[in-house]
Amino acid sequence: MSTTPAPAAPRRARGRPRKDQTHPDAPRARLLRTGVEILTEKGFSAVGIDEILGAAGVPKGSFYHYFGSKEAFGLALIDAYADYFAAKLDRWFGDDEIAAPLDRLCAFIADARAGMQRHGFRRGCLVGNLGQEMGVLPEAYRERLAAVLADWERRTAQCLRAARDAGEIAADADCAQLAEFFWIGWEGAVLRAKLDRSTDALDVFADGFLAALRLDSSRPRVAPG
Amino acid sequence: MSTTPAPAAPRRARGRPRKDQTHPDAPRARLLRTGVEILTEKGFSAVGIDEILGAAGVPKGSFYHYFGSKEAFGLALIDAYADYFAAKLDRWFGDDEIAAPLDRLCAFIADARAGMQRHGFRRGCLVGNLGQEMGVLPEAYRERLAAVLADWERRTAQCLRAARDAGEIAADADCAQLAEFFWIGWEGAVLRAKLDRSTDALDVFADGFLAALRLDSSRPRVAPG
Repeated sequence: MSTTPAPAAPRRARGRPRKDQTHPDAPRARLLRTGVEILTEKGFSAVGIDEILGAAGVPKGSFYHYFGSKEAFGLALIDAYADYFAAKLDRWFGDDEIAAPLDRLCAFIADARAGMQRHGFRRGCLVGNLGQEMGVLPEAYRERLAAVLADWERRTAQCLRAARDAGEIAADADCAQLAEFFWIGWEGAVLRAKLDRSTDALDVFADGFLAALRLDSSRPRVAPG
Repeated sequence: MSTTPAPAAPRRARGRPRKDQTHPDAPRARLLRTGVEILTEKGFSAVGIDEILGAAGVPKGSFYHYFGSKEAFGLALIDAYADYFAAKLDRWFGDDEIAAPLDRLCAFIADARAGMQRHGFRRGCLVGNLGQEMGVLPEAYRERLAAVLADWERRTAQCLRAARDAGEIAADADCAQLAEFFWIGWEGAVLRAKLDRSTDALDVFADGFLAALRLDSSRPRVAPG
C-alpha cells in the first residue's frame, strides 16, 4: 500500500511512524476523491478502475476491500459528491454575511463558474455526467441521482423562499418550481460550458434566470436584450 | 453482406434481384441510422463498433470501407444527426399552417416530448450526449458539436424574431440570446427527462421559458406559481 498520505488526512503526530492504518479511511477517501475528479471529467463508462487506482496510488485489493465492485464504487462516489455539494450549497445559501438571498444564489453561481474555469472547463457535474450516461449505468443509480437533484432543488427552493420573504421576487412565486427550473437549466449550462470551454453558457443561463426572477428589474424577462 | 434492405431505401423495381449494389448507400445509411439510435441512448464511449454492426446487419469490412475509423464514424453521425434535426426544426418553424411563431416553437417542443415518450425516455440528444462526453472524445468533435448547437440557435432565433415581429414577445427582446438560453436549458431538460423517465423536466423548462417570453401573460416570469 502506498504511504503517500491523503491530502485531506489529519496531520500525524510527530515522531510516530507513517502508517496508513493510523488513518484507516485514508485509502478509501483517496479513492473517492480521485474517482470524483476523474468521473466529473470523463464520465463513468470511459473510465476503468485501473485509471483510478493509478491516480489514487491505491492497490486493487484495497479497492475491492472498500467497495466490492465498480458498481458499488459508483454509488459511493454519488454519495460523496452529494455530501460535498450539499455542504457547498449550505455554505453559500446560509452565508449570513451576504444579506440578500438572491445574492447568495449569485455567490454559488460565481463559485461554480470560477471552479469550472480553474479546471480549464474539463470538469463538469458528476450527477449531470452520470445522468447523461444512465442508458448504460446500473438501474440503482437512477433513483440515487434523482434524489441528489431533488435535494439540491430543495435547498435552492429554500433560498428562493427567503428571497421571496425579503421581497426580492414575486410574493406568489412557486419557489419549488423555480428551483426545478434552475437545476434543469444549470445542468444544461455546465454541459455546454464544458463543450465550449467557456463561461458563456453559465452566464447566459444565470443572467436570464435572475433577470426573470428579480422584481426590481424593469423588464423581468429571460435573457433580456 | 446482409441483404436486408435499409428501411428508408427506395423500393426496388419489380422483378429485379435484390442486391445491395443497386442501393450503393444502403449499408452506409443503415450504419448511420443505427449509430444515431444507439448513441442517443448510450453515448459514444460505452458503445463498440461491433454492437452497431450487429444491430445494422453490416459486416466490419463495409464499416471500414465507408468510414475508416470509429472517430470518423462519430463525425459522420454528428453530421447525419445535424441534418435530421435541422429538417425537423425547419418543418416546425416553417409550418405555415401554424399562424403564431411561438406556437411553432411549442409544436417542436411537443414533437420532441412525444418522441422521448415514444422511446421510453431511453433516447436523448446525440449532441447533448457527445457534449457531455467531450472529456474523452477526439478534439475534432468539439468544434463540430458547437457548430450544430449554433445552427439550432440560429434557426430558433429566426422563429423568435418572427414572434417578435408578430408582437408575441417584447419588441426589444434579444432573440439570439433567448435562443441560446433555450438550447442551454433544453439540453438540460432532455438529460433530466432521460434520468427521470418522465416529461416533467421538459414541461417545467418549456412552460417557464414560454411564460417568461409571452407578452400576453399577466405575470411574465420563469415558471410562475
